[in-house]
Amino acid sequence: MVAGIRTPNPLNEDTKNEQNEHLPSLQVAMSEIYEQLSAIRNQLEDHYTDMQDIEFTIQDGRLWMLQTRVGKRTGTAALNMAMDMLSEGLIDKQTAVLRVKPEQLDELLHPIVDPAAEASADLIAKGLPAGPGGAVGQIVFSAEDAVKWTREGKTVLLVREETNPEDVEGMRAAVGILTGRGGMTSHAALVARGWGKCCIVGAGALEIDVVGKKIEVDGKVFSEGDVLTLNGTRGLVFAGELSMIDATENPRFVDFMKLADEFRVLKVRTNAETPDDARTAIDFGAQGIGLFRTEHMFYGTGSEEPLFLLRKMIMSGSESERRAALDELYPFVKGDMKATLDVMGERPVTIRLLDPPLHEFVPQSADERSKLAEALSIDASELDRRAEELHEMNPMMGHRGVRLGVTFPEITEMQIRAILEAAVELRQDGKACFPEIMVPVTGMKAELEDQLAIAKKVHAEACSKYGVDEIEHLYGTMIEIPRACLTADEIAETVEFFSFGTNDLTQMTFGFSRDDIGGFLPDYLDKTILPVDPFQVLDRDSVGVLVATAIDKGRSTRPDLKIGICGEHGGEPNSVEFCHMVGMDYVSCSPYRVPVARLAAAHAQINHPRN
Amino acid sequence: MVAGIRTPNPLNEDTKNEQNEHLPSLQVAMSEIYEQLSAIRNQLEDHYTDMQDIEFTIQDGRLWMLQTRVGKRTGTAALNMAMDMLSEGLIDKQTAVLRVKPEQLDELLHPIVDPAAEASADLIAKGLPAGPGGAVGQIVFSAEDAVKWTREGKTVLLVREETNPEDVEGMRAAVGILTGRGGMTSHAALVARGWGKCCIVGAGALEIDVVGKKIEVDGKVFSEGDVLTLNGTRGLVFAGELSMIDATENPRFVDFMKLADEFRVLKVRTNAETPDDARTAIDFGAQGIGLFRTEHMFYGTGSEEPLFLLRKMIMSGSESERRAALDELYPFVKGDMKATLDVMGERPVTIRLLDPPLHEFVPQSADERSKLAEALSIDASELDRRAEELHEMNPMMGHRGVRLGVTFPEITEMQIRAILEAAVELRQDGKACFPEIMVPVTGMKAELEDQLAIAKKVHAEACSKYGVDEIEHLYGTMIEIPRACLTADEIAETVEFFSFGTNDLTQMTFGFSRDDIGGFLPDYLDKTILPVDPFQVLDRDSVGVLVATAIDKGRSTRPDLKIGICGEHGGEPNSVEFCHMVGMDYVSCSPYRVPVARLAAAHAQINHPRN
Repeated sequence: MVAGIRTPNPLNEDTKNEQNEHLPSLQVAMSEIYEQLSAIRNQLEDHYTDMQDIEFTIQDGRLWMLQTRVGKRTGTAALNMAMDMLSEGLIDKQTAVLRVKPEQLDELLHPIVDPAAEASADLIAKGLPAGPGGAVGQIVFSAEDAVKWTREGKTVLLVREETNPEDVEGMRAAVGILTGRGGMTSHAALVARGWGKCCIVGAGALEIDVVGKKIEVDGKVFSEGDVLTLNGTRGLVFAGELSMIDATENPRFVDFMKLADEFRVLKVRTNAETPDDARTAIDFGAQGIGLFRTEHMFYGTGSEEPLFLLRKMIMSGSESERRAALDELYPFVKGDMKATLDVMGERPVTIRLLDPPLHEFVPQSADERSKLAEALSIDASELDRRAEELHEMNPMMGHRGVRLGVTFPEITEMQIRAILEAAVELRQDGKACFPEIMVPVTGMKAELEDQLAIAKKVHAEACSKYGVDEIEHLYGTMIEIPRACLTADEIAETVEFFSFGTNDLTQMTFGFSRDDIGGFLPDYLDKTILPVDPFQVLDRDSVGVLVATAIDKGRSTRPDLKIGICGEHGGEPNSVEFCHMVGMDYVSCSPYRVPVARLAAAHAQINHPRN
Repeated sequence: MVAGIRTPNPLNEDTKNEQNEHLPSLQVAMSEIYEQLSAIRNQLEDHYTDMQDIEFTIQDGRLWMLQTRVGKRTGTAALNMAMDMLSEGLIDKQTAVLRVKPEQLDELLHPIVDPAAEASADLIAKGLPAGPGGAVGQIVFSAEDAVKWTREGKTVLLVREETNPEDVEGMRAAVGILTGRGGMTSHAALVARGWGKCCIVGAGALEIDVVGKKIEVDGKVFSEGDVLTLNGTRGLVFAGELSMIDATENPRFVDFMKLADEFRVLKVRTNAETPDDARTAIDFGAQGIGLFRTEHMFYGTGSEEPLFLLRKMIMSGSESERRAALDELYPFVKGDMKATLDVMGERPVTIRLLDPPLHEFVPQSADERSKLAEALSIDASELDRRAEELHEMNPMMGHRGVRLGVTFPEITEMQIRAILEAAVELRQDGKACFPEIMVPVTGMKAELEDQLAIAKKVHAEACSKYGVDEIEHLYGTMIEIPRACLTADEIAETVEFFSFGTNDLTQMTFGFSRDDIGGFLPDYLDKTILPVDPFQVLDRDSVGVLVATAIDKGRSTRPDLKIGICGEHGGEPNSVEFCHMVGMDYVSCSPYRVPVARLAAAHAQINHPRN
């Protein structure tokens, strides 16, 4: 039976199914022993106050109990059992909350492929489970087609060798994403996880021909328009359409989350940059935005004009040219921030100033370059020269974040003006809003002093323009550079909040470029040189030490310093527990991770209570 | 007189010169006041036991003393005065040692341009003082020409827009290097400083035309073969030949260094990879090699064959192909290590295992690529594909150092075999040698355990092959990743020594890519957001904290842990003082910095005594 070569007899008449209905049940065949087993089972489950996985044998008409342990269950089952036992008074609230693992919520938040359907389906490939849930759709091979087909009312899966920022609109349009290359931190995986979208990456067995618009695998061919099903939670690709299960609208889920919140002390915010994402996150219980990336507006629908102006600014030859381009860009930036601030209302919104190195935005195509050269009244070779000058060997540690603000103060100025004027305009319309200005990539207090001087100047100008005494906001910084952690006492003299950027902090603490770990991380995990990917689970022995040091030092000079974390770790249960234990005020994660973080924070308070 | 518009009268007859010989001296014109002044001067210099810079005035026949302070002096003057005063019993040994600043030794170690000659010379451009001393030579515009002309007995200056590793032989052949582009940490600057060679980089005013073999500046043209003079200490480029001063053979210098060594407790090693550099460093007082970079052998004269084999290894498609290429490479690696171990004798030699990312060695030219493809029996497109696969976004934090050793254990194996077999062969020839195996880019103990297993296996094999019980060596690691500092207690359980790589540690602590700081560091220094370049002077507030943490933690689990530093900071006086204060055993720096480090270490012990 354990080997799976015999079909077991059913326990009772109620649990008969099509595989075993021809077999007699224990209840019928040995009714006395069945009653005895049932009584022992009840006694065990009462004792452990949990569902049990019991092993027994019957020899010569006598029942022998072999083993009992807590039974495994799906997320849905865990939630249902916990709420049932709570309402039956078998367990208390705290125990009910602990009965569901935060990771299990993922399953409840996304439609999933029906496991019964999977059992008999045609599995064509396996890949990495990069974005949770299931998705069924017709395959298309370009972002443009994904957008076009979706507009035509079709449901599509976007299939690519790998994705890049130009594919973002297509990824958004598709119900699922499938790539042949890339790891758990590839572009496709990061974007999909951020959206909570079903995604499988690195399905290497598939020969993807985006020009010929077909997939070949094991002699089978799937062409544009053919239907596939993705199980993004397990990384499985199936031919044809499989049925799906949706558990999100379960009212018990809503009740359970309320219960969890009774214990939680850590606040949960979200990383969002659009009114839509902000609304989704609020529905999931987000208490603010912990990371609004200003640069998002240069990607995706409607980004053509601001992106062009940004590029013009980047390629300017002088400060006056740069200021002229920034003036043109200004209304877009202000409008973009204002829309999300409006949705969030009184909930705080942390807006990060421009972070990426400028050359990320330099156009690659000759056509776009010549258009840009024309707008700048320079020739193509001069544009190429300026683009070449921006090239960096290690852009992750190059001219980005606050370093841009120091060398080009006018960029900081424009952004802070946009934030403050958006806020004062909303307030003058009788609306609540609470912006927090966040400086990225800080390594030393003097950088923040430099930028604060700009913020103060802009604030005074905006107050005078709008006839107010003050535009309420906070001024703070990302803590993502080891030096910032080590000198956090000085830094906290200048800023009102810290937000840990543990993605970059992990990069620098380990000396691991996230874009390049594919070359060695799989071997590190195989050989258990690393127990887990430190970009998924915060490494308490190193990154955690720097975080704790920064918190201690920061609060030593500013006891009321507001402290949070943004980035992937903010939605990972083990990392959320750590954030709770070191005394952060909040975590921030992508909208679909908000319930996971809420439950993880509740568990953390139950297991490690703090005031 | 202070404005410099009047020629002052000479003080006495002895100090008359061609500018002032027509003027009466104070000694003749006012002999009584001259005697009075002379007596006061003697009294002041006796009191301060140092040369004084005195201001006075004479009004209505009366002498008024205005100010006195310690007089500024050149390095040569400082040394001479200190040794004179010591021999006259005016000051004690300790004071004599403190009278010369470590930085001033630079001047004594390199021939310099005669300041008198500079005053009337034709200054054509200014650049950054990247390599100290002066140099006169005929200009050439390619590394090949530099080598060829030097072989023909000419003395040349190599002029380039910027340099790269292919220029190294030309740079070595030239007496000085001049580039139009690049900063203090450009390739030219790093290489030149390592060799103590005169070098000026970033002389932007020069229009360098390497094809036309000429320099244009301010309407003047200098063609191949024309003579220029470089003052690398100050970054000045002069037309024509200026006279030079050489102070290195001063016996007082030798005596002074002996005196300094009486105080010093910190050992001083050198970074060297050739028998020649090793000998130079020993002459300068180096007590060992703190950093022998195995990869050096793939650059410069005689590197063609090993470089080709290395490339073959890198581009191999399987472990067996890679092992075959490593076997071919092996005799070169062993021979190279053996030659330097032989020169160093009983002095310890720390050999660092392969550090750079492999793609650094991938050939760029089509010709070299096709040769390589042929040797590997693959076509050009396959070679291009493999090369492309090695490309990284942020190579500094990519697949390098111990990460190579983990994914390709056979590379580690070959190198450790070379080290141990070179050592046992030297010893069997009756020679002393002491190799220390150093693993680079370590972030966690498990990496070192993984590599140690290889070292033990190779050690056992080599012992058996050579019929010995043991091949004495140490096993240690670079500490250059923040995580290594934070977990140094665990790491020290596995290794016998630490060598701090504060170049990389500074990169990761600040999040500054050394190759890319040109975009913002000048602004940071201008605005004093940073007081100094942290790659030149170790930042005690951040990198220093990590270093001190690592030392405390490391010695907590292994009290006799040997600890040093290698890299640029090891030859910078302020950083050497720090290394002394935190209890390191040695610093290691380029050969020409060894005397500077020795004196800095002596000062450190005098100012901050330790046992």
